[in-house]
Amino acid sequence: MIFNCLTIFPEMFSAFTGTSLCEKAIAKGLIEINAVNFRDYTEDRHNRVDAYPFGGGAGMLLMPQPLFRCFAALNEKHAARKVRNIYMSPAGKVFTQKKAAEFSGYEVLNILCGHYEGVDQRVLDHLIDEEISIGDYVLTGGELPAMVLMDCVMRYVPGVLSNAESLSEESFSGGLLEYPQYTRPSSFQGMEVPEVLLSGHHKNIAAWQREQALLKTLLCRPELLESAELSKEDLEILDRLKKQT
Amino acid sequence: MIFNCLTIFPEMFSAFTGTSLCEKAIAKGLIEINAVNFRDYTEDRHNRVDAYPFGGGAGMLLMPQPLFRCFAALNEKHAARKVRNIYMSPAGKVFTQKKAAEFSGYEVLNILCGHYEGVDQRVLDHLIDEEISIGDYVLTGGELPAMVLMDCVMRYVPGVLSNAESLSEESFSGGLLEYPQYTRPSSFQGMEVPEVLLSGHHKNIAAWQREQALLKTLLCRPELLESAELSKEDLEILDRLKKQT
Repeated sequence: MIFNCLTIFPEMFSAFTGTSLCEKAIAKGLIEINAVNFRDYTEDRHNRVDAYPFGGGAGMLLMPQPLFRCFAALNEKHAARKVRNIYMSPAGKVFTQKKAAEFSGYEVLNILCGHYEGVDQRVLDHLIDEEISIGDYVLTGGELPAMVLMDCVMRYVPGVLSNAESLSEESFSGGLLEYPQYTRPSSFQGMEVPEVLLSGHHKNIAAWQREQALLKTLLCRPELLESAELSKEDLEILDRLKKQT
Repeated sequence: MIFNCLTIFPEMFSAFTGTSLCEKAIAKGLIEINAVNFRDYTEDRHNRVDAYPFGGGAGMLLMPQPLFRCFAALNEKHAARKVRNIYMSPAGKVFTQKKAAEFSGYEVLNILCGHYEGVDQRVLDHLIDEEISIGDYVLTGGELPAMVLMDCVMRYVPGVLSNAESLSEESFSGGLLEYPQYTRPSSFQGMEVPEVLLSGHHKNIAAWQREQALLKTLLCRPELLESAELSKEDLEILDRLKKQT
């Protein structure tokens, strides 16, 4: 899978591509991450990529010319591949685990990293398939969001995670938050690990973990319960927990 | 404002602290970003910071000892300051612009970056004030989310943004998505800028921009309209738009 990040700050991506997971996936040829500086595609003699908005307003906008030329070059390079063109923007659809799974079905993701002043609407209308937001907050640029998106998507590429099970065990895959976990030592500065976890009784441990996952979701993110996969037993546990809390 | 990021991958933060906005804010003494490697606080003779979970399960958990010692050192250093201890976790409360404004009221944010296998619950119960998620998706580690949080929060620190107005003009501050924007040239490969924006008629431009912001929000994120600040005129425009679309 190929990620092309269109940015005027290509150096920001080195810390991400240098992480262990990325480095291994790149070395194995599973993914490719290219930071493409679209300033290289400007025809402005001062190398500008932005200008003032028509109709007034604060800040500068990315101009169409460098981006149309940059996308044309990428499209030529990746012709006949399954490509999705994404713009990272606080005004986009909110990114989710489901969206990450969907994006992992493409061969090439071209990810335009804007800066918050924005981009000419003609770019969005003609070059971009989808505007994506990583959450309801405003950031300085699209580079961190692009890294967040890539981190999440690349985990679906077969071979990237050493343990294929790890995806399914994590938060959100089952729709519930993860239960509390404990490790060594069993007693630390007077704080004890719940006895059941030391019992070796697998059925009791599984029951405790399920109840704790339900409790944590009920307390922290009750809205997730509406779309979670719940058994009849889960619903009974929830009824009891609601009465207790 | 001081950000201490507790991480075993301190090198990941260099690309962020090297961005123009960070660099200037640090040079002016407005913010300080420290990547604190909590592996330096382990008392394990093999320098380990993680171990297997009690009760089984895939992956390793961060052990309490290095983190209790690391937080103790930070608390001693920042005694008498207004401190908030945060854990970046997909199971946390979802981060929002409002939360960013709230966090900017602290003098010190200690941000624990876990990896998705998780952390011993005693750390969360005794050291952490708040678990924060940047969105409903799973990432490899807490480092990117910590950078996202810092980027968003530091923009509230007085002096960090050169133009104090820029915060209020952006998406989410008014509760609506931003209207489409256009810049030079007014005609590009047959694609034209809407005439009204070239008219110089400020009242018409403002009306067009408001209607477009309402339209974009209606089409892309209708749920935002429920909490947006809408005038009687806005509601009339929305009624008309709903009939048209």
